Amino acid sequence: MNIVTISREFGSGGRELGKKVAEILGYDYYDREIIAEIAKRHGVDENYVEHALANHAWQTYSLSFHHSFMSPIYVHSPDSKLLQEQKIVIEEIAELNKNCIFVGRNADVLLHDRHPLNIFVCADMNAKIKRCQERAEGHEKELTEKQIKRKIKNIDKNRERTRFLLADGKWGDRKTYHLILNTTDWDLDELAYAVAEYVKRYFKDK
Amino acid sequence: MNIVTISREFGSGGRELGKKVAEILGYDYYDREIIAEIAKRHGVDENYVEHALANHAWQTYSLSFHHSFMSPIYVHSPDSKLLQEQKIVIEEIAELNKNCIFVGRNADVLLHDRHPLNIFVCADMNAKIKRCQERAEGHEKELTEKQIKRKIKNIDKNRERTRFLLADGKWGDRKTYHLILNTTDWDLDELAYAVAEYVKRYFKDK
Repeated sequence: MNIVTISREFGSGGRELGKKVAEILGYDYYDREIIAEIAKRHGVDENYVEHALANHAWQTYSLSFHHSFMSPIYVHSPDSKLLQEQKIVIEEIAELNKNCIFVGRNADVLLHDRHPLNIFVCADMNAKIKRCQERAEGHEKELTEKQIKRKIKNIDKNRERTRFLLADGKWGDRKTYHLILNTTDWDLDELAYAVAEYVKRYFKDK
Repeated sequence: MNIVTISREFGSGGRELGKKVAEILGYDYYDREIIAEIAKRHGVDENYVEHALANHAWQTYSLSFHHSFMSPIYVHSPDSKLLQEQKIVIEEIAELNKNCIFVGRNADVLLHDRHPLNIFVCADMNAKIKRCQERAEGHEKELTEKQIKRKIKNIDKNRERTRFLLADGKWGDRKTYHLILNTTDWDLDELAYAVAEYVKRYFKDK
């Protein structure tokens, strides 16, 4: 079973890239599906789960992981339970024993023992702002460039913090991943084919 | 004309990888050739040029580049002249207008205006030590693991410093390159084919 994980800067196109690579390779793809499963099990709204995992979970982190310096009083907070549940769901998916790609969710850390191929996707700030503008929905359409930039930085800061709590390797650092890609100036379809080729060759004799 | 630059950690296999990718793509390859040309022009030994550029040039850097805070008294030192000459040689090669790969020599900075595809190659420390042991020649064979590790760190520190003097982007940081590759666990032949595919697709519509 080949597992690929994709971590990414917000607005870099990592999710779209992951989906395209999965399509090319015929791998299963997991991202929102994990959120949906957690929401179902806890009888809560998907958006609540997503928001909680992205924004609060790192503050209320439980004792079961690597850096366990958070106060035990937080251990049983609803948000940290969601994070625990995320771990369980991701492990259950891996148990299915099928080739798959995980986008986000710190799957690189959670599935470490299964030797995934870990990819990090980034882009230049202007490219990320442009992508966010193109995909804006509802009230997001009213955000100024400055507000989008602040949003990108905040989200990435949270991702960085969450990873810091989970494992030693630094978020976005070359020592943490097998491959780091900058999507700026790329046609994502072309890049997806290049990444698919890389994935195929990586797992060839493993 | 497509220009690829490869920067790399010492012992990561970046040079070998660059050579293989050039062979696959039919690109010209430049590395030692630049040293040889500089040595010829200055009537000095190739080893002297290589040693000076790797170890001293960053200390005696001239005023013509980005971060020009070094003392002017160093500007006309023999080593800084070598660095100037390296710049000229690399630009002359680019003038030939042929698809090519440069390994090292800060070609990513020097050829910035020609929009090269910039790749950084790294590896885990144990893999780098192993590679250095396998390729050791002469007195290098007597080095202990600890000494090799120190050598790797020193060489990379010099590369980092030299880049800092030349340009804003940090050596080995994801914001500085299009692609960062970790060669650990790879068969370099397989990786070369994956990288060649990436290069072809990157330049496809450019």
